[in-house]
Amino acid sequence: MIITSVNNEKIKYLKKLKNTKFQQEEGLFLIEGEHLVNEALKANALNLTVSLKECNYGVENIVVTSNVMKSISSLSSVPTVIGVCKYLEEKESLGNKVIILDGIQDPGNLGTIIRSSCAFGFTSVILSPNCVKKYNDKVIRATQGMLFKTNVVTKNLNEFIPTLISKGYDVYGTDVISGIDVKKVTKKEKIAVVMGSEGNGLSNEVKALITKNIYINMSGACESLNVAVAASIIMHELR
Amino acid sequence: MIITSVNNEKIKYLKKLKNTKFQQEEGLFLIEGEHLVNEALKANALNLTVSLKECNYGVENIVVTSNVMKSISSLSSVPTVIGVCKYLEEKESLGNKVIILDGIQDPGNLGTIIRSSCAFGFTSVILSPNCVKKYNDKVIRATQGMLFKTNVVTKNLNEFIPTLISKGYDVYGTDVISGIDVKKVTKKEKIAVVMGSEGNGLSNEVKALITKNIYINMSGACESLNVAVAASIIMHELR
Repeated sequence: MIITSVNNEKIKYLKKLKNTKFQQEEGLFLIEGEHLVNEALKANALNLTVSLKECNYGVENIVVTSNVMKSISSLSSVPTVIGVCKYLEEKESLGNKVIILDGIQDPGNLGTIIRSSCAFGFTSVILSPNCVKKYNDKVIRATQGMLFKTNVVTKNLNEFIPTLISKGYDVYGTDVISGIDVKKVTKKEKIAVVMGSEGNGLSNEVKALITKNIYINMSGACESLNVAVAASIIMHELR
Repeated sequence: MIITSVNNEKIKYLKKLKNTKFQQEEGLFLIEGEHLVNEALKANALNLTVSLKECNYGVENIVVTSNVMKSISSLSSVPTVIGVCKYLEEKESLGNKVIILDGIQDPGNLGTIIRSSCAFGFTSVILSPNCVKKYNDKVIRATQGMLFKTNVVTKNLNEFIPTLISKGYDVYGTDVISGIDVKKVTKKEKIAVVMGSEGNGLSNEVKALITKNIYINMSGACESLNVAVAASIIMHELR
């Protein structure tokens, strides 16, 4: 059976999952395209698929028309498959390499940082409560599926950073005024790096909690890097 | 005098500059927001400003209503100032550090690479003809003004790469199969790095021209990085 109506109850339910509040209530989120659906499947996070043709990912599948798919999708070009995933487990155990994000707003930046953190063995990404949400569709797309392999957790940084320090982590800020060149940092086993927001850098509250700073050596011509680039360079150096 | 009509001839002309073909014919492009206008001014590229209030950048200024500004702007929130800039000079002298982009499609990625190239002293960015255009408004925004400090030139790579090699550049591809860890490259004075497109990597034609490859060491969990991140890490290492 093919669902042809955008007013079908199941379809209406799926469309409501694009709303952040409803998504949180249900503990479910949508992903689009074969690559992400395959990554979700491997991570055992896939609940349901919606597709244009019969397909078998080992979970319930609904076949819909292109028009119905378009009504669910957030993309300009309609995907062949959309997946419904369970909210991911958030682990208390963070690993030895942690990246902390203070107020990151751009979904592409957050997704790219999650992707890089996975590439460089930073197994936990900590978000301040005012960051863009991790289940935002643009965030998920930019992670290229690495969301399913990374422990992304929201924490109150004013409480969290002192706890990390007390557990023996070297916590580095990225303020450039009085820092160490990232290429010259003495790498301890437990490292956390805090990146500030695109417009404003680190908040004053967070700055007050940190005693060590890292900078990336740049030519005089350019004052700053994209935050996802800066975070990735630092993780590549400190891995 | 304040221009209040979106049908004013000057305003119609400015709006036409959003069209790539017309932009090329006129040799002019638009930039939005104070930061970019200031960077254009420093680079002596500013021809005209359009603003909501009287302002003085030392060039002709047109004051317009918010409604007119909105009709010219590509942004969702209306800027206070838009600048009209002259097409930038493209230099034949490329410097010792060159980054070459083979088919980059995403304007955010191109802009971010231009920004990073400026930070790390890669003074020329070479685009294959099928890359996104450098005067695309999203490219310009992502450069954060560094477009005005970087020599961005389009070249036929099949001719350009052999020329670079003959001039004594070490030209590195970024195919991962048989490469050198970027941290272990013996840095020669003249270096060029070729980055492939987001979906497909390097084209076969370009691969055939290159004998040396670089890779970025990653954990097994993640297969690839965002191309702007990868380019930036490589430039940071090889600067």
